[in-house]
Amino acid sequence: MISAKGIAAFSAKEPLGPWSFQRRSPKDHDVVIDIQFCGICHSDIHTVRSEWGDIQYPLVPGHEIAGVVRQVGPKVTKYKVGDHVGVGCFVDSCRECAHCKQELENYCLKGMNATYNSVEKDGKTPTQGGYSDVIVVDENYVLRIPKNLPLDRAAPLLCAGITVYSPLMHWKAGPGKRVGVMGLGGLGHMAVKIARALGAEVTVLSHSDKKKADALKMGAHQFVSTHDHSVFQELAGTFDLIINTVSSADLNMGDYFGLLKLDATLVSVGAPDKPLTVSAFPLILQRRNFAGSLIGSIRETQEMLDFCAKHDITPEIEVVSPKDVNTAYERVVKSDVRYRFVIDMKKL
Amino acid sequence: MISAKGIAAFSAKEPLGPWSFQRRSPKDHDVVIDIQFCGICHSDIHTVRSEWGDIQYPLVPGHEIAGVVRQVGPKVTKYKVGDHVGVGCFVDSCRECAHCKQELENYCLKGMNATYNSVEKDGKTPTQGGYSDVIVVDENYVLRIPKNLPLDRAAPLLCAGITVYSPLMHWKAGPGKRVGVMGLGGLGHMAVKIARALGAEVTVLSHSDKKKADALKMGAHQFVSTHDHSVFQELAGTFDLIINTVSSADLNMGDYFGLLKLDATLVSVGAPDKPLTVSAFPLILQRRNFAGSLIGSIRETQEMLDFCAKHDITPEIEVVSPKDVNTAYERVVKSDVRYRFVIDMKKL
Repeated sequence: MISAKGIAAFSAKEPLGPWSFQRRSPKDHDVVIDIQFCGICHSDIHTVRSEWGDIQYPLVPGHEIAGVVRQVGPKVTKYKVGDHVGVGCFVDSCRECAHCKQELENYCLKGMNATYNSVEKDGKTPTQGGYSDVIVVDENYVLRIPKNLPLDRAAPLLCAGITVYSPLMHWKAGPGKRVGVMGLGGLGHMAVKIARALGAEVTVLSHSDKKKADALKMGAHQFVSTHDHSVFQELAGTFDLIINTVSSADLNMGDYFGLLKLDATLVSVGAPDKPLTVSAFPLILQRRNFAGSLIGSIRETQEMLDFCAKHDITPEIEVVSPKDVNTAYERVVKSDVRYRFVIDMKKL
Repeated sequence: MISAKGIAAFSAKEPLGPWSFQRRSPKDHDVVIDIQFCGICHSDIHTVRSEWGDIQYPLVPGHEIAGVVRQVGPKVTKYKVGDHVGVGCFVDSCRECAHCKQELENYCLKGMNATYNSVEKDGKTPTQGGYSDVIVVDENYVLRIPKNLPLDRAAPLLCAGITVYSPLMHWKAGPGKRVGVMGLGGLGHMAVKIARALGAEVTVLSHSDKKKADALKMGAHQFVSTHDHSVFQELAGTFDLIINTVSSADLNMGDYFGLLKLDATLVSVGAPDKPLTVSAFPLILQRRNFAGSLIGSIRETQEMLDFCAKHDITPEIEVVSPKDVNTAYERVVKSDVRYRFVIDMKKL
């Protein structure tokens, strides 16, 4: 076994704190990774606070992991000691279902093995995430981080980046397409940068004007404050694709559906804990689609990392020390982050 | 002008009754149609009762019109006196927008000229529907009813038929595809027959077992009563397409989304007057789609009529006399119709 240190949640209500635990000894295809940075995703907070259902404590969250290979199992062919690597939202999957065989492990029919709050392939050992100094992951679920991407800025790409890249690619954002991005947070700001690099015309739809300057700097062609409700009429029927990164149930989705062209799609990538109120009329009137999308596959994630390296796309981050995780959580909940916290795990 | 008799609504609360009015004199491209039959669509009831917004009275509803050409304007080339023809949900459209130019008049960006509760091309004359003895319609918005389709049974194809045919074609129902049909009413029973004829494997999802024998007789391969909630687990992830013909806001849409395969679509064709409660989770977990679809274009409607004639597909109907319209309305509201009322307008 490999001794690991981490920052864990011990209950839904307590602050996170230090915890020592064991990682498995590397098997034939395992890669042992010295974690250098781990992003803080809103999902981490929902999970450790049991907002998405009961969980087993202690739990080490974190699925935006960037680090350096410390050791490899005897049959590993993809990575060697010293390589820059990343781990995202899952560390394994069934590898046998129709979706795994199509390289869509994120939609594994038996349920992927999530990076934390799940179990390893043995079906019983709890998985523990990246707020930690070391992790052991099968090489097939490890990503290569191109050398020109700094590891601290690469970390959030493993969840925030791929979660928006996948639907942007699936629904063909690109030249001649008008893409809307709802919300300019961790996911939203990556959607702006990636959609822009894909050649789309990008509009940010935000509830206030506060982030306008930032959005334009990130590459948005247009910024729209939805505080002024008349924009829904002005922009009706003009978008080819809208990526919804806002996980609030208070939005009137019908307003946003109305912004779509015929046959266009609004994709939600963040799920609110309460159901949405949805009028079917705007969907019917122009054969519009409301869809969801869940992170991305391993192949897509590698493609996204290479794309970001090539186009020099990285998130805006604020690096924090492991001891400041609880303060960072409070700030995430208040949307007081521009635009992603990354924990420097070397300071653990 | 042409004198017309009709059955009209005079207010939201009163029963419908006889009314005499004028149709326009035929212009160059107009076809004058002696209406023989008109189907009763639930939309007629929603509209005349002001459930979908305020309307102008008197109003003659009806957009499932089948009849015989009485007279044609001097430049009409498509039809001649004596032809069997139909008129559906719209009698004109702008003809200039991108959608009209793509032969998608049902999605006309300026709003099509609906068969009733709308205005004619002059922008002011109210349109009056098919509960009437005669109608005047531009030849480009008239459909040819193949001679082997009886006119009484052809009438409901003009709305109920095309409304399900269009999404079945758009989302590619056919051999090897598993199609679910929610609700076995006027639209649902047509969806079963058409999907079966397209070669799909058809499952009816109904809230009780009452219509099981009918569904199987109509061609459904499987009938599922959703009264037993365990079916949502048993059938999870097994449908390529679901057509939702139930216009009730009380459904838990998330249950139905869960029945879809990866990337599959649930299409609503009937809009409830209240918003739906929709959980985004099942959409996200398997990149599923929730879409809407609005009737169909003129080209598609003709294709549907020809398809139904070729495959001997007609609705199950109960023919009523014009004097029985109000009773029929009460029965539609109570779902006491198997499966479509058609008014014999010759008895007016």
